[in-house]
Amino acid sequence: MLDYNVPGGKLNRGLSVIDSYQLLKDGKELTDERNFSCICTWVLQAYFLVLDDIMDNSQTRRGQPCWYRLPKVGMIAVNDGIVLRNHIPRILKKHFRGKPCYVDLLDLFNEVEFQTACGQMIDLITTLEGEKDLSKYSIPLHHRIVQYKTAYYSFYLPGIYLRVEINGDCDFHVHQVACALLMAGENLENHIDDDYLDCFGHPDVIGKIGTDIEDYKCSWLVVKAMELSNEEQKKLLHENYGKEDPTSVAKVKELYNTLNLQGVFEEYESKSYEKLISSIEAHPSKAVQAVLKSFLAKIYKRQK
Amino acid sequence: MLDYNVPGGKLNRGLSVIDSYQLLKDGKELTDERNFSCICTWVLQAYFLVLDDIMDNSQTRRGQPCWYRLPKVGMIAVNDGIVLRNHIPRILKKHFRGKPCYVDLLDLFNEVEFQTACGQMIDLITTLEGEKDLSKYSIPLHHRIVQYKTAYYSFYLPGIYLRVEINGDCDFHVHQVACALLMAGENLENHIDDDYLDCFGHPDVIGKIGTDIEDYKCSWLVVKAMELSNEEQKKLLHENYGKEDPTSVAKVKELYNTLNLQGVFEEYESKSYEKLISSIEAHPSKAVQAVLKSFLAKIYKRQK
Repeated sequence: MLDYNVPGGKLNRGLSVIDSYQLLKDGKELTDERNFSCICTWVLQAYFLVLDDIMDNSQTRRGQPCWYRLPKVGMIAVNDGIVLRNHIPRILKKHFRGKPCYVDLLDLFNEVEFQTACGQMIDLITTLEGEKDLSKYSIPLHHRIVQYKTAYYSFYLPGIYLRVEINGDCDFHVHQVACALLMAGENLENHIDDDYLDCFGHPDVIGKIGTDIEDYKCSWLVVKAMELSNEEQKKLLHENYGKEDPTSVAKVKELYNTLNLQGVFEEYESKSYEKLISSIEAHPSKAVQAVLKSFLAKIYKRQK
Repeated sequence: MLDYNVPGGKLNRGLSVIDSYQLLKDGKELTDERNFSCICTWVLQAYFLVLDDIMDNSQTRRGQPCWYRLPKVGMIAVNDGIVLRNHIPRILKKHFRGKPCYVDLLDLFNEVEFQTACGQMIDLITTLEGEKDLSKYSIPLHHRIVQYKTAYYSFYLPGIYLRVEINGDCDFHVHQVACALLMAGENLENHIDDDYLDCFGHPDVIGKIGTDIEDYKCSWLVVKAMELSNEEQKKLLHENYGKEDPTSVAKVKELYNTLNLQGVFEEYESKSYEKLISSIEAHPSKAVQAVLKSFLAKIYKRQK
């Protein structure tokens, strides 16, 4: 279960902890403890994905069937998610119990998990509302969902984690990295990337078959499409969004193409990138600049 | 979601914390903090039940449809379980952060949750094995499942919790209560009661429709039935246990009646009760005796 679900992603979240740490410590050697704390962020991610796939009724993930889709697994996957999750405090206990940062680390993971679950809740409740009225989907609502559902554990966790991690010589400098990472994450709106890939990414490359259209998700694409559509196109969206059948899904994708959402997205992405580079270069510390640029390189123009 | 899932049970686990505390503190007033810690045990129970019902494909719970069966809920219930779970560290943080017991309480809940998830895992894996060969179900295996799945959070948690809770004047005396509660719980084999009620309890009284037979569960009843059956009866079990159709379920229940499992259970229960009363009365402290007897009264000969 661990082998199937924990490796295989891009490992960004965990590696950004290690990378940042190495850059800020001028390449001093990493201890096992730091490596274990990095593993925790992968386990957290695996836990969310195993459960999210059940809730979204997804087919594939990272190029293989979703865990719960395996004939021998099924709904046992709910408990497997819990077992994965329970490994986080176990790893933390084994490697940090007795250190001053232990209780902060427990609090941090609990907080981030709660924020993520709230994001998931807003997402799922929004979908129920959206089914009644698609025009309720808006950019601020979409932003709020993603802030809770993705940004906290993807950007806030590695950032703050780092701050707690190097306790003892935790200074304002490092705290700034945490905040910068969080803001970088939010500004880049990496999640829009997610939405984009869900629809236009090739399954062989992104490793999963997107289901946002079928699931009536409040995705950046449908919000943008509603914004750019004329009355007739809006009607088409109302009639076909959230339907299981492939014809409806194809009609929605065709409209996305007509509206050139791919172009709108690419323009948005490159503008965001330029804005981010300038704000990173405005940072007084070269070390912090390096951390942020290395992180940015991992997520910018990703194909999966 | 909280209103639907948290109240409505027998509240034993939480109340036993309060009861024990009151008896041992000679009726001194309980603070809000103690009440909040009691709420945590109900929330933990609610979290387990919401997810267990999904995994067991159950219909009803506490006299109402299982949460995930509500049309507006469905698989969102997985996230609702997580949201429930996340309230435990939130309540603990609000009321215990900064106190010496805080980190112990976090560790305790994490440990108990992990043990319970392991119990659930053994249960679910056992069921997969049992489908291939019913004769793999045995009393020691059944005992192991229940020890992890039920005993830790039902008996160990309130007991140890109490010990941590009254930190400051935590003495060996109180620690003994914790251990005694744990042992009492295991000895009474309250879980056999659970298995029994799943099959023979009236849905209006136990508030749920049992699904152990359909789910191929390693229940005390099927283990005992295999033990008492002749070859022909064993064949009937092999052919009908774990089938969804009501005729097969009825055949299994009829065999349980033929083997007089109700009588076997009642004899076992009353013998356990006598043994427990003697071991409680052998305890040197009258206060501890009172705690254990009050707890025993709640679970003995329960109808739901």
